[in-house]
Amino acid sequence: MQGMVTAIVMVQAERQRIQETAEALAGVPGVREVYSVTGEWDIVVVLKLERYEDLDDVVTGHLRRVEGIARTQTMLAFRTYSEALLDQGFGVGLDEGGPFS
Amino acid sequence: MQGMVTAIVMVQAERQRIQETAEALAGVPGVREVYSVTGEWDIVVVLKLERYEDLDDVVTGHLRRVEGIARTQTMLAFRTYSEALLDQGFGVGLDEGGPFS
Amino acid sequence: MQGMVTAIVMVQAERQRIQETAEALAGVPGVREVYSVTGEWDIVVVLKLERYEDLDDVVTGHLRRVEGIARTQTMLAFRTYSEALLDQGFGVGLDEGGPFS
Amino acid sequence: MQGMVTAIVMVQAERQRIQETAEALAGVPGVREVYSVTGEWDIVVVLKLERYEDLDDVVTGHLRRVEGIARTQTMLAFRTYSEALLDQGFGVGLDEGGPFS
Amino acid sequence: MQGMVTAIVMVQAERQRIQETAEALAGVPGVREVYSVTGEWDIVVVLKLERYEDLDDVVTGHLRRVEGIARTQTMLAFRTYSEALLDQGFGVGLDEGGPFS
Amino acid sequence: MQGMVTAIVMVQAERQRIQETAEALAGVPGVREVYSVTGEWDIVVVLKLERYEDLDDVVTGHLRRVEGIARTQTMLAFRTYSEALLDQGFGVGLDEGGPFS
Amino acid sequence: MQGMVTAIVMVQAERQRIQETAEALAGVPGVREVYSVTGEWDIVVVLKLERYEDLDDVVTGHLRRVEGIARTQTMLAFRTYSEALLDQGFGVGLDEGGPFS
Amino acid sequence: MQGMVTAIVMVQAERQRIQETAEALAGVPGVREVYSVTGEWDIVVVLKLERYEDLDDVVTGHLRRVEGIARTQTMLAFRTYSEALLDQGFGVGLDEGGPFS
Amino acid sequence: MQGMVTAIVMVQAERQRIQETAEALAGVPGVREVYSVTGEWDIVVVLKLERYEDLDDVVTGHLRRVEGIARTQTMLAFRTYSEALLDQGFGVGLDEGGPFS
Amino acid sequence: MQGMVTAIVMVQAERQRIQETAEALAGVPGVREVYSVTGEWDIVVVLKLERYEDLDDVVTGHLRRVEGIARTQTMLAFRTYSEALLDQGFGVGLDEGGPFS
Repeated sequence: MQGMVTAIVMVQAERQRIQETAEALAGVPGVREVYSVTGEWDIVVVLKLERYEDLDDVVTGHLRRVEGIARTQTMLAFRTYSEALLDQGFGVGLDEGGPFS
Repeated sequence: MQGMVTAIVMVQAERQRIQETAEALAGVPGVREVYSVTGEWDIVVVLKLERYEDLDDVVTGHLRRVEGIARTQTMLAFRTYSEALLDQGFGVGLDEGGPFS
Repeated sequence: MQGMVTAIVMVQAERQRIQETAEALAGVPGVREVYSVTGEWDIVVVLKLERYEDLDDVVTGHLRRVEGIARTQTMLAFRTYSEALLDQGFGVGLDEGGPFS
Repeated sequence: MQGMVTAIVMVQAERQRIQETAEALAGVPGVREVYSVTGEWDIVVVLKLERYEDLDDVVTGHLRRVEGIARTQTMLAFRTYSEALLDQGFGVGLDEGGPFS
Repeated sequence: MQGMVTAIVMVQAERQRIQETAEALAGVPGVREVYSVTGEWDIVVVLKLERYEDLDDVVTGHLRRVEGIARTQTMLAFRTYSEALLDQGFGVGLDEGGPFS
Repeated sequence: MQGMVTAIVMVQAERQRIQETAEALAGVPGVREVYSVTGEWDIVVVLKLERYEDLDDVVTGHLRRVEGIARTQTMLAFRTYSEALLDQGFGVGLDEGGPFS
Repeated sequence: MQGMVTAIVMVQAERQRIQETAEALAGVPGVREVYSVTGEWDIVVVLKLERYEDLDDVVTGHLRRVEGIARTQTMLAFRTYSEALLDQGFGVGLDEGGPFS
Repeated sequence: MQGMVTAIVMVQAERQRIQETAEALAGVPGVREVYSVTGEWDIVVVLKLERYEDLDDVVTGHLRRVEGIARTQTMLAFRTYSEALLDQGFGVGLDEGGPFS
Repeated sequence: MQGMVTAIVMVQAERQRIQETAEALAGVPGVREVYSVTGEWDIVVVLKLERYEDLDDVVTGHLRRVEGIARTQTMLAFRTYSEALLDQGFGVGLDEGGPFS
Repeated sequence: MQGMVTAIVMVQAERQRIQETAEALAGVPGVREVYSVTGEWDIVVVLKLERYEDLDDVVTGHLRRVEGIARTQTMLAFRTYSEALLDQGFGVGLDEGGPFS
């Protein structure tokens, strides 16, 4: 999975349609995570592609055309510092005896 | 992994220390992904915790005290729409014949 | 009431309908306080839920769909520093002889 | 508790001292709730006073002088829509069978 | 006039209707001064009420419903430092021999 | 008082010195009202001068040099819609029977 | 020309009508210079009037009603530092041998 | 004066030094008008040069190095709509019988 | 190519029409590069003209009238520091053995 | 030059050092164009790299560490619409008979 391009797309959705929009975004090819979030933006999308050349088709041609989107802003990752951790997909349990024990 | 709390933390780092700061953030407990990114923010951190009660210790007490951080903004996920996909950890290959074939 | 999740939702309402919108927000389950306020936002809602998992249904599915809302921004509390005081529900009287006497 | 004046004060604290600052704010007379929160602001303070005339002393003279504060913004409530609910101090349980059952 | 509550309301009006809007605002009860001004806002209203409890009716229920208003922002005075001067209603003449002579 | 020039000056003061700064501003020639206020700005100054030519001396040369000021923004009134009311200096009593009775 | 009041009006015009709008603005009485400019604003208007009292009629009543205007912001000059140079209307030739020779 | 390049430079000056800074700016070659102004900016400079090639030397190399400047923003004129009027240098008298008579 | 004027135009396009808008912009005379980009803006246009006098016709009269544009902001280059490199049109290969070897 | 990654980096430089900073930026590997510009930013850098993987080293590790930089913001090109034109490196002459003849 080396050499992948990661884009993080912040989305403002129409107020009445946030859940439907988030579901539609989760179906776009390359989309790995979709969160509805607190704050200025409504939805955060994490997208991973194998080739930089596919970004324009996926983001401009596909993702940003999803119904219910009002505004988007895309950040591209220069570098990923912890993909290994991500791929193992494990959570951090802080239950026993206190945090970080 | 049901019931996990996801926080996405945007970080502005001191201009000379972005790489060191990103590396330090990757070592904070609960941190799953760290990206240096284009745009207004320098670093995006994705954090997953099992208990809402641990957030303050991890974010306020730990993560935001990392050296080299100038400013942070935290978004909490209300809901995660595609964790299944994430856990499978597979990428999307768009190589053969065009995107989405 | 330990372990509750507190959300503070800032609301901009349609200029002609601030009072009706505030009243409707006061009827959303989990809403504890609704204030019409000075400044950039029109209404502040304080919401308390027992489970983090209910946030998306209450905030995204319910509260943000109230008629008359133009824009919202949600903050989640990492930690509450004075809930005991709140539950006792007492005010501070500064009447006798000067403040803080 | 009729006729009380409610002020909601948003606080940005020095990044290394958010918890200490929140604790100090919880000790200011009239302060009813203090939350450390996600988003642009670090801390939200809910303050209730019996007399409008005491606001300047409490907010300008006292609260804003707490050590560790970098910036504050105060909203005053024009009107409170749900104080009765607040005074009863009860939470909303959404556990049995689904939200709002 | 002791104990009065002063609100300063900044108003953006529809571009073609600034003068009519300012005139209508001057007729709202409690309004003491209305200025059309340079800068980001079009109109500044100074409002004085005897009771804090009347603010919501005057500002939310009355003033903000005036036709031609596009956006408002209200500041409440914590404290007034020079009302005596105001009540005497005298101007400052700087004509003779130079300013402040 | 015909032909007077009104300037409204918004002031951000150093957090520890708002009251002293407001008092000093109240002593600047031409200053008619000084309020400490809620919101983005700390202090609002209403200034009235007989001659437009004196503005630069009073605002730039005098008022903005007051100790404790961090930032100012000045609005000039194009026109005053209710100076008569102001000069009579009377408040609006909303006590008997309800507002606007 | 002593005692003149100078206003600088920044204008955002409808995107398709910038040139027509600038031409119309050049015809407003008192307008001395109209520039279409780079940056956040589309047009800058320099306006000079003999009497402060005429500002509201010219700016609010006339200039801001020109067709094609989307938004304006007006700055008033406190003081003019180089009107003499302006009135001589000469340019600065930097041609011979280098700038400022 | 055909073919001249006009730049409008907005300046924020150190609060204590606005008048000195404005005077120094008035002495920069090519500067035609300097105003201290109301609003977000402190000073507006109108600069006219005969050759586009001289802009960098005058603006970057000279004007922006003047002592007392905190921040600048430069707009370049695409086109000047009323230079003829400017060169005649006449004011508009609105004294007789009403504006625009 | 000495004496050329370079303008960099940031464009926000209608969300559904970014690709068509970028293609149309690439056909405007003088346009040298068109990029669809991440971040606050959708498209960046680099424009080079031989004469400053043509800017208004190309930018205001032509480029900003392209269908699908929602907002533009233009920066003009004071000076170009590396046009020689640009004209040679060569890329930087960082393939062999590491960057900058 | 197919498959190149283009980054556009906006730079705010220390006010006294814009020219030196621009010169230093022109020497960073991969940098193709450097402009000092009007508006909110001081310098625009156009950077072209053959491999996405080199971006972090060039931008974070190299370019953003140049002395004199106060703030940067990077946009990555999703797609380039007119590279052919760029490589031919020709300007557009609008001299004969009018624009676009």
